[in-house]
Amino acid sequence: MTNRALIICNGEPPTRRLVRKLASHADLIVAADGGANAARLYGIRPHIIIGDLDSVSATTKRVFASSSILRVRRQDNTDLEKALDYLVSKSIKNVCIVGATGRRIDFTFGNLSVIWNYTSRMRITFVGDGWKAMPVESGKEVRAKVGTTVSLIPFGPCSGITLKGLRYPLTNATMKVGEIGVSNIVKRSPFSITVRRGNMLLFIMDRA
Amino acid sequence: MTNRALIICNGEPPTRRLVRKLASHADLIVAADGGANAARLYGIRPHIIIGDLDSVSATTKRVFASSSILRVRRQDNTDLEKALDYLVSKSIKNVCIVGATGRRIDFTFGNLSVIWNYTSRMRITFVGDGWKAMPVESGKEVRAKVGTTVSLIPFGPCSGITLKGLRYPLTNATMKVGEIGVSNIVKRSPFSITVRRGNMLLFIMDRA
Repeated sequence: MTNRALIICNGEPPTRRLVRKLASHADLIVAADGGANAARLYGIRPHIIIGDLDSVSATTKRVFASSSILRVRRQDNTDLEKALDYLVSKSIKNVCIVGATGRRIDFTFGNLSVIWNYTSRMRITFVGDGWKAMPVESGKEVRAKVGTTVSLIPFGPCSGITLKGLRYPLTNATMKVGEIGVSNIVKRSPFSITVRRGNMLLFIMDRA
Repeated sequence: MTNRALIICNGEPPTRRLVRKLASHADLIVAADGGANAARLYGIRPHIIIGDLDSVSATTKRVFASSSILRVRRQDNTDLEKALDYLVSKSIKNVCIVGATGRRIDFTFGNLSVIWNYTSRMRITFVGDGWKAMPVESGKEVRAKVGTTVSLIPFGPCSGITLKGLRYPLTNATMKVGEIGVSNIVKRSPFSITVRRGNMLLFIMDRA
């Protein structure tokens, strides 16, 4: 059963070593448009390339001539959304995303914003060099080395926030737009985060 | 009257040329903590350095020994918030921010999130190489070259969104968390954006 997917987006990918490791754990590798160029440079053959294909280089197209290509010309969603829609159609439950940040700042914010349409159907983790980001779905227990820096960024108002096992704990707190919680520290692993209402993104900074 | 401030944050600063140009137009230059290191490398003397000063190098401290230093040890807000609080106390109405993005991804998201506490009191623009970002305050007319890419990222639900002068216009639309509008194109300058309710960040990508 295919259950774990890796999406390679067209931002700045993490190191070759990290992407290859994630690819080796994935049942399905999806290149979101120009992410295929990074896959080629890293020697990773995606099972499918999805997007309007305006960012895939001629060399990449030639090298991956035998990969499936799903050309979606819709202008009203992003290449990451096209890739996630495909994974929803395949009932994939665990998705790791690399290359979602860097290069264009609007795409960085856009890529980490669009996931809220998918979080009820799949578990999503963004991975970069030295960091991970994931949406907090109601309650979450997370393993991390004691001393690790974690940050919380609300996307819209959040309430019923309880943090346990962190240096600055919270109990049933609220955060509105403009309030953030950066540079909290893991005191106990697993630590736990509960958000009863709202969309909260958790960053785990392994190398902060 | 001091009316225009430049804040230099501790992320990746834009080019020396751009930061020096912005500094030359500013009445007041504030280095947010480690942003002072970038100011020194660019040959810009900040009027004041604000933060808990844990990121200012020894060399920077020595070179800027004559600059004012405001050491704020509060742990519950960021260096950018400390700098913005200072500018509020000085009734500054126009603030340009550089170095807010890059390096730590949690700070990138955090820095562009905290401004919503300040937008009723000052006009804020983030500037990077080839891009600008600014909160849309109810109605906004923006001059930009025809063909420029613009993107809209809502921070929480937004309603009453009207876009005029862009390739993909909107009339009294709503966007919820997870919906974004990347890669719209300027058809007519000035174009206009109205958001009746909610927090919307506008990105102008001069080099997309």
